[in-house]
Amino acid sequence: MQSSVLETICQRRSVREFTAEPVASELLQTIITAGVWAPSGLNNQPWRFKVVQAVTEKAALALQTQYGHIILAAPVLIAVYLDQESMYDPVKDQQAAGACIQNMLLAIHALDLGGVWLGQILKNKAAVNTILGIDNRFDLMAIIAIGHPKHRDQHSTRKPIDHFLL
Amino acid sequence: MQSSVLETICQRRSVREFTAEPVASELLQTIITAGVWAPSGLNNQPWRFKVVQAVTEKAALALQTQYGHIILAAPVLIAVYLDQESMYDPVKDQQAAGACIQNMLLAIHALDLGGVWLGQILKNKAAVNTILGIDNRFDLMAIIAIGHPKHRDQHSTRKPIDHFLL
Repeated sequence: MQSSVLETICQRRSVREFTAEPVASELLQTIITAGVWAPSGLNNQPWRFKVVQAVTEKAALALQTQYGHIILAAPVLIAVYLDQESMYDPVKDQQAAGACIQNMLLAIHALDLGGVWLGQILKNKAAVNTILGIDNRFDLMAIIAIGHPKHRDQHSTRKPIDHFLL
Repeated sequence: MQSSVLETICQRRSVREFTAEPVASELLQTIITAGVWAPSGLNNQPWRFKVVQAVTEKAALALQTQYGHIILAAPVLIAVYLDQESMYDPVKDQQAAGACIQNMLLAIHALDLGGVWLGQILKNKAAVNTILGIDNRFDLMAIIAIGHPKHRDQHSTRKPIDHFLL
């Protein structure tokens, strides 16, 4: 138990290339459930999710970011929002969104899928809401692109622990 | 592998009561390593950590929050910061802090320890930095209280998935 959680945390990588195989809806349900079980301040659970699979929507979203090729290649996207009517503190709610997204990324890895956290598209978040028909009460936090990985050759690095200790 | 990650995500609880047993330094190292392996925008790794174990520091910190009794009861605290000189976008860096903290909470649970994410103390973050001798270049994101759980009777709830779907 211990090692597999810690291994997942350290072995998860951003996956940006996917096969054409769709992602089963039960797996999407599991991924979102993992997100929902993140902690939030006062347990306010401010996160909301829009699952995007339609080719027309993906094509329109792809034009809103320099990472459009990843959006087009992913069989499914999950747009993660904060519901401003459920928020109580911007900093803490944005942290909660990060915790939620991380749970989802760990679940994606644990399910043998691959995913990547896309943030650059936030610069066009109003356009994203228009494309998806979502009210601006909902504040876009990220889009997660998800699919079956084309390969597992991803690498990543971190600075040594001592760099981070105050 | 799959189930244990998802189980950890769903079974982790906020633990606020601890035995007097100290937390071994190798375990603290593992917890911080888990935090460091969170994703961050541009892989900027903006998080920093201050480990607090001294009774005098804990006593001073306890006066800065209504949850002082938890601070006093925990054998060890990890204060999580953002280094403003490493930041590139406040929203994305705060999300990254949340992802980092969630990794640490999952590691704590996986190591059979208990922990709780304390945010209310942020209202006195300048005083916290003074107590810990930390420059205000470092922006406090949370304090995690950690120890060996006195019991495992914690409960939590989430709204049904449909509530969160747009």
